[in-house]
Amino acid sequence: MIAIHPLFDIPEIRAGDHLAAVLRDSLTSAGLWPLKTGDVLVVTQKIMSKAEGRMVDLSTVQPGEEALELAATTRKDARLVELVLRESSAVVRAVPHVLITRHRLGHVMANGGIDRSNIGPGEEERALLLPVDPDRSARELLDALAGPGAAGIGIVVSDSFGRPWRHGVVGVAIGAAGLPALVDRRGEEDRDGRRLEVTQIALADQIATAATLATGEGAESVPAALLRGLTLPPGESGAAALVRPLEEDLFR
Amino acid sequence: MIAIHPLFDIPEIRAGDHLAAVLRDSLTSAGLWPLKTGDVLVVTQKIMSKAEGRMVDLSTVQPGEEALELAATTRKDARLVELVLRESSAVVRAVPHVLITRHRLGHVMANGGIDRSNIGPGEEERALLLPVDPDRSARELLDALAGPGAAGIGIVVSDSFGRPWRHGVVGVAIGAAGLPALVDRRGEEDRDGRRLEVTQIALADQIATAATLATGEGAESVPAALLRGLTLPPGESGAAALVRPLEEDLFR
Repeated sequence: MIAIHPLFDIPEIRAGDHLAAVLRDSLTSAGLWPLKTGDVLVVTQKIMSKAEGRMVDLSTVQPGEEALELAATTRKDARLVELVLRESSAVVRAVPHVLITRHRLGHVMANGGIDRSNIGPGEEERALLLPVDPDRSARELLDALAGPGAAGIGIVVSDSFGRPWRHGVVGVAIGAAGLPALVDRRGEEDRDGRRLEVTQIALADQIATAATLATGEGAESVPAALLRGLTLPPGESGAAALVRPLEEDLFR
Repeated sequence: MIAIHPLFDIPEIRAGDHLAAVLRDSLTSAGLWPLKTGDVLVVTQKIMSKAEGRMVDLSTVQPGEEALELAATTRKDARLVELVLRESSAVVRAVPHVLITRHRLGHVMANGGIDRSNIGPGEEERALLLPVDPDRSARELLDALAGPGAAGIGIVVSDSFGRPWRHGVVGVAIGAAGLPALVDRRGEEDRDGRRLEVTQIALADQIATAATLATGEGAESVPAALLRGLTLPPGESGAAALVRPLEEDLFR
């Protein structure tokens, strides 16, 4: 049995907050501390970005020429579009009300992963960027919570993405540590001795999605969840391993 | 807390088997019967297809001209390609070792969702098609297990799909009943009174993905899982609601 525990009572996070201490307190009050083998702590991008001081005051952003053009096309705030462009390596799609880019981290997503909702009262003019290096952030958090030598315990940094062929968002991993974000099973066989057709499993995405069932979206959202009872395969790879290079994109 | 219970001890399923009875027995022996509010039973496509007799003997399949051409391009078995074409409304991508189509149910996936692994010993020449109408199958299973008037209990039929921009497969829903497969929150506000940016949530996909953490892939796979402790939003839509029409595909 795998349990998904939402972590309530996490205070509003501000730049410089020690996220590990906050999460340890929350896990303790939920009776989930200490972490143990088979635990994966899922932390939403939102609180990790806030702790890292990734909030940007939009009034300080001067849109350039490309941002002004794209803002006209997409009918979005030109300052926001400027931030999206700074965060991205390529524009995938720009039509009215839609701006999809390849983020510099490799993920293809709407609005460069920039969040304007739920960032705190009276902060309408601010935007929250993704963490600078979510895989590194996950590793640092894991070391702080479980010690550098811990085995069988993982951290996933989650976000919500839309998908090309399907309606609705699902949780995805933008950072991971302590587990193989991508599980490679090429060469393994099924129980009848036939070679597996499915050979790569996006474990960190699956964990992020499962956590979303407990953390939710919007009004009742909570910023973290603990999955307990997983059997983590050996090996370790960050969420960067989940990014498919453009030249490998077989669905286009 | 949400619990994901893998359902072990499900016997090999054959055409005509009464899946509801088999699953009720498994739930009973796991101490999970009767179902209660907040339960969603996730059934893998594989056992639902087997129960519906969707196994095809490849030696009975005569590939047509298009199948022969696509088989040469993709280096796949022409009989399999013929089945894929019969199951599909459009070819999305055909390159060596890759055949991605839009299934007649609307889902974009590899090999028309046809499964050749784990279908039983000595059955190398057989292929397993998707259920004819997984949303209807889910509804019938829900009625059989929980009664036609049951509320707050759901069924999801799961499969594993690759994704265009990301490595690795994740669980997705190809059938659903008793819950809104797609949750539409347009017009709702976050806790600061700002309109939600994320407005549609692929709930059934999220549930299918979470279940995959317990059901797994390959050698140790189990064919069903029960999620207990969910708070299902009101409304009901099948997995068909998750299909994004081609003309709305904003990522291309």
